[in-house]
Amino acid sequence: MTPFKLSDELLEEIRSLVESKSDQSLLELMSEFHYADIAEIIDELNLEEGTYLIKLLDTERTSDVLTELDEDKREQILERLSAREIAEEIGELDTDDAADIIAELPEERVREIISQIDDRQHARDIVELLRYDEDTAGGLMAKELVKVRESWNVLTCVKEMRRQAENVTRVHSIYVVDDEDKLKGRLSLKDLLTTSTKTQISEVYIPKVDYVRVEDKAEEVARVMSKYDLEAVPVIDEIGRLVGRITIDDVVDVIKEEAEKDYQLAAGITQEVEADDSVWQLTKARLPWLVLGLLGGLGAVFIMEGFEEVMSNPNYRSLFFYTPLIAAMAGNVGVQSSAIIVQGLANDAVKGSLLQRLIKEVSLSLINGGALALLVIAFGFLINQPLEVSATIALSMLAVIVVAALIGTFVPIILDKRGIDPAIATGPFITTSNDIFGIFLFFYIAKVILGF
Amino acid sequence: MTPFKLSDELLEEIRSLVESKSDQSLLELMSEFHYADIAEIIDELNLEEGTYLIKLLDTERTSDVLTELDEDKREQILERLSAREIAEEIGELDTDDAADIIAELPEERVREIISQIDDRQHARDIVELLRYDEDTAGGLMAKELVKVRESWNVLTCVKEMRRQAENVTRVHSIYVVDDEDKLKGRLSLKDLLTTSTKTQISEVYIPKVDYVRVEDKAEEVARVMSKYDLEAVPVIDEIGRLVGRITIDDVVDVIKEEAEKDYQLAAGITQEVEADDSVWQLTKARLPWLVLGLLGGLGAVFIMEGFEEVMSNPNYRSLFFYTPLIAAMAGNVGVQSSAIIVQGLANDAVKGSLLQRLIKEVSLSLINGGALALLVIAFGFLINQPLEVSATIALSMLAVIVVAALIGTFVPIILDKRGIDPAIATGPFITTSNDIFGIFLFFYIAKVILGF
Repeated sequence: MTPFKLSDELLEEIRSLVESKSDQSLLELMSEFHYADIAEIIDELNLEEGTYLIKLLDTERTSDVLTELDEDKREQILERLSAREIAEEIGELDTDDAADIIAELPEERVREIISQIDDRQHARDIVELLRYDEDTAGGLMAKELVKVRESWNVLTCVKEMRRQAENVTRVHSIYVVDDEDKLKGRLSLKDLLTTSTKTQISEVYIPKVDYVRVEDKAEEVARVMSKYDLEAVPVIDEIGRLVGRITIDDVVDVIKEEAEKDYQLAAGITQEVEADDSVWQLTKARLPWLVLGLLGGLGAVFIMEGFEEVMSNPNYRSLFFYTPLIAAMAGNVGVQSSAIIVQGLANDAVKGSLLQRLIKEVSLSLINGGALALLVIAFGFLINQPLEVSATIALSMLAVIVVAALIGTFVPIILDKRGIDPAIATGPFITTSNDIFGIFLFFYIAKVILGF
Repeated sequence: MTPFKLSDELLEEIRSLVESKSDQSLLELMSEFHYADIAEIIDELNLEEGTYLIKLLDTERTSDVLTELDEDKREQILERLSAREIAEEIGELDTDDAADIIAELPEERVREIISQIDDRQHARDIVELLRYDEDTAGGLMAKELVKVRESWNVLTCVKEMRRQAENVTRVHSIYVVDDEDKLKGRLSLKDLLTTSTKTQISEVYIPKVDYVRVEDKAEEVARVMSKYDLEAVPVIDEIGRLVGRITIDDVVDVIKEEAEKDYQLAAGITQEVEADDSVWQLTKARLPWLVLGLLGGLGAVFIMEGFEEVMSNPNYRSLFFYTPLIAAMAGNVGVQSSAIIVQGLANDAVKGSLLQRLIKEVSLSLINGGALALLVIAFGFLINQPLEVSATIALSMLAVIVVAALIGTFVPIILDKRGIDPAIATGPFITTSNDIFGIFLFFYIAKVILGF
């Protein structure tokens, strides 16, 4: 496939076609593109142009385009469509995508849209999905699935499946339920086709089936599906009834978002912002973390004021030259330790006792810190610094590194144990506290050794 | 599904069963577990115990277990198996998993193993896959797929499909090729079943099909599959011949690894290390970045030495208290800017001209920096600092923030344009250079304003 590349020329062409209302040429041009590419185009167009395109194209295509649009853009475009138009769009979509699209709209509007959907079963299914939190299995699942009863025979089953499969784009699995709709197992297509038509389903189905619960967290669903290589997983409610299914493509988005969120937190950015968001949105996402860093820096100012008289001592004043170094080391070590732990927690790969981890982190930071301390002493020779000063700096840096590693390791573990997302303890939070702590420790140890 | 949780008790039980060679009880116990769970167990056992389990269980199960094992553990276990045993294991696997498992072994060993595989076609397919770089479409793909010729009629096609499907666990798509094996399109199962058996395939197939090239980067494959919601994608070689197919579950791993790699780089950790790796591996991954940070800190020492005489001036010596603050701001802003750009580049979401981006970053950092500058001035009042000093600090901090944002934004963009992974420009690299640059700028501007 020649990769689609949205060029300025193409955008210009589309813009001028929209302006001149050349519908036929637009339709022809668009017919070549995948709906995900059309979404990319509309994300770049202004609101009028985008809405024009959406109204021009078939609902069969635009419904898919809507699912791929940037959320803000989608909301704005939906505001310009009538309830009837939106109902037609989401009538084309699977229930999970339909619910995602209207979930953000005002309640009143949602009711209006739902009432305009022709297929009432589809409407009821969407309403049901709207009830679930978007970060749970219920929020990810779709109602479209193929299910058969264990009390049926193979013939009834095949007939029923044909009917159900019409609404399902891709059959991942056939689920078996009892008369109360409780999930009992799954059925292999092969067994179904090679068994006599009079055989009861209860005799041929596979009772072992992986499932998730409707209230399970989205990340847990992602973990289970990727660990067990599942392409689809059934969802059951509190009393074991089959209520939906989640496919791997929905989970890919969860995995990506999760990774991006952790990455952004580590970089000191809240909310899911993108490079192309507005200056205002970016400010909101970035400023709070910078203020945190600023407060840390001001804290360091306070601490150093307490040691101001050292500046009058020509032998020891050079200690102040090392404060950015100490802060950087404390910050870097803290971020490294916390990143490894946060990733380990996310992948369920942190094992062993806290004591073992303590020993490991201490030995690790002694090795790293020892190597760095030697470099600092060598540097001291180079710039003719008194050995006692170099040694003091090296030693206190080593202490700072050990403490920073311990804070970086155990703060996320403690947060995780208390049910708080440990990812907030990476990035600015850890660097700021480690900065203050490191600088205090540095001067304090120097004071004890050098006796000023 | 009750989530599998590897408890210490379970591990102890398995250990003692292995020690007492209670094969029957072990087999019974293991029969309850998913292969991914067994892999988790073996990752925790020592080498002897793990190898014992692998040799005890059916190859049908252990082959899957091998694919899920931690790489280091797998290599060590494979060393303890004979070529014949490994051949039996990989004989059970799809070609892509088989190739992944033996790819890391010495060439001589691989030859020996391949020669012991009974199914010669399977062996040839694996050898072909070993040729490709693991970070490309060729390295991800499997040879198992269902393909039919456009010159066949529906009847031949169905017969051939039945034969081929035996080797394919899940049929994602039926691909249509010409007599030279060139990919022409795909076939829907529905069309195939509803068309007369004498119809030629060339009359019913869908000529539009997404594909990737064998030399495409793994990340590009992941981007295409997740953008276009593909569950499987065919792979063609240089001259358009169908050579394999990639399924979404393989790509999920790529997406996860990619995100984790970027995250680790941002945190200053090279290589893919995990919390449970050895102290030595963790040191190798962390120390180089700390040395980089140290060099940056020592650079700052040099710069400050040049301003040492300021310490003798009681009015201005407090400037030195602010160096960790300046370094932290320069570092935080740089990391924020670079993280947003790196993520945007990865998602192909960085659009518009460089000039637009320049204007945006400058206005963003003027807003953020302005707010922070006001806080610094307010703080100055609180601690009775002369206004000229506070204002100087605030102003130079503002300048540092603007420069740091520009460096954080444009270094990744420039690296990306030159084909270098922009993710290396996040984390320690950007914080270190911004530290030095920031502190120099801070003192230089202060010198100009205060005239010392």
